[in-house]
Amino acid sequence: MAIVLITGGARSGKSRRAEARARACPGRPVYIATAEALDAEMEARIAQHRSRRGNDWIEREAPLDLAQALTETDGGGARLVDCLTLWLSNLLHAGRNWSDETALLTAALSRQQSPVILVTNEVGLGIVPDNALARTFRDAAGLLNQRVAEVADEVEFVVAGLPMKVK
Amino acid sequence: MAIVLITGGARSGKSRRAEARARACPGRPVYIATAEALDAEMEARIAQHRSRRGNDWIEREAPLDLAQALTETDGGGARLVDCLTLWLSNLLHAGRNWSDETALLTAALSRQQSPVILVTNEVGLGIVPDNALARTFRDAAGLLNQRVAEVADEVEFVVAGLPMKVK
Amino acid sequence: MAIVLITGGARSGKSRRAEARARACPGRPVYIATAEALDAEMEARIAQHRSRRGNDWIEREAPLDLAQALTETDGGGARLVDCLTLWLSNLLHAGRNWSDETALLTAALSRQQSPVILVTNEVGLGIVPDNALARTFRDAAGLLNQRVAEVADEVEFVVAGLPMKVK
Repeated sequence: MAIVLITGGARSGKSRRAEARARACPGRPVYIATAEALDAEMEARIAQHRSRRGNDWIEREAPLDLAQALTETDGGGARLVDCLTLWLSNLLHAGRNWSDETALLTAALSRQQSPVILVTNEVGLGIVPDNALARTFRDAAGLLNQRVAEVADEVEFVVAGLPMKVK
Repeated sequence: MAIVLITGGARSGKSRRAEARARACPGRPVYIATAEALDAEMEARIAQHRSRRGNDWIEREAPLDLAQALTETDGGGARLVDCLTLWLSNLLHAGRNWSDETALLTAALSRQQSPVILVTNEVGLGIVPDNALARTFRDAAGLLNQRVAEVADEVEFVVAGLPMKVK
Repeated sequence: MAIVLITGGARSGKSRRAEARARACPGRPVYIATAEALDAEMEARIAQHRSRRGNDWIEREAPLDLAQALTETDGGGARLVDCLTLWLSNLLHAGRNWSDETALLTAALSRQQSPVILVTNEVGLGIVPDNALARTFRDAAGLLNQRVAEVADEVEFVVAGLPMKVK
């Protein structure tokens, strides 16, 4: 196992599954958070994830420069990136070109020595959103998932806390 | 087979699949409806489900006290609970603590002698909803599905009327 | 392989998967588009799909009369129908009875000599939509998918560009 993509819906148990996979790798696991605690709702979720993980993780924030964070943390335990959908949202808010950044990410992934477990969300299985911005976001999220899945060694789709093997 | 969770999207054929599984068990099947006919749209859907099922089912309504309904109907044919997502919605409207109620449900499930087939919905695979109430609901629905899946012997994800094995 | 249904979320790689399957069949593939270029967003997407497919496809538009288009193009290469969800939307806008039209479609599918690959969307795995029209649409879309899946020889659920076997 080198690169694993874990996808699924909201609260489907993706992060917990990803944590289990990262812990199963040798070395001290590294948690790479793309979330920034910008509001109370997000802060509460971050705190909850942290309390579940425990204190033995190396923690790092990478709201934008994910490829760089992977490169700098390579050589030790597995890295858990949680999550790509939030990273995409951060990139769009910062005015970055998500497609170029995704190319940097997949290139970085192909150079990693230590395992990387990436969590992402499926956001395209509901009714077409009314507003164009939401449509643009879900299109980008779908394409991002495809590109990362292409370079991943394994892809899992998590339903009700249980992984289904996709690749 | 003892506890089976059937999940999937709206109109994916979950109920029909669950009915087939319940009928395949010995004894007269019991239909435990969490729905209440509060408006015309719901009434029409309930009538449609009933006409498809046929008249040989024992019917029972349990909008809130699901654990109790399971305990009281144990010992005969399989129970079909349709569905958990509506039950969650009922709990929230009634001001009940869904997490405590879910603990009562999973405890009751572990004590059943006769099979239980539970239908639930995946609601977390679309764009993040605008309003906080909908986000809270889909978070709770995802966690509820995880907890029931954990105690289930089998979990199926239904796509276009066809079951995919998850557990 | 005769009738293949490819389903999945927005931008999950359904069309690309369907194109690969159609190309793998003997004969010159036929692209049956249910889309009409009514606005700039749609026009851009059609152009993008066409540029990816290449120029060796026979192209045909069938926004409404899909059964007829299949009958008229039978006997050569595989037909790719892209997509059923848009076809459903066209039927509803034109005031046609989608259920009757679906019966015509499944009857036509059962008579085909050459393969047919049909692309459709999962739209029922998000939060229940606020407005009744969207609920009606997702109900119809779910039922349409079930009926076509019933007559299909193969059904695939595409996640992050990767097919999961459903049937």
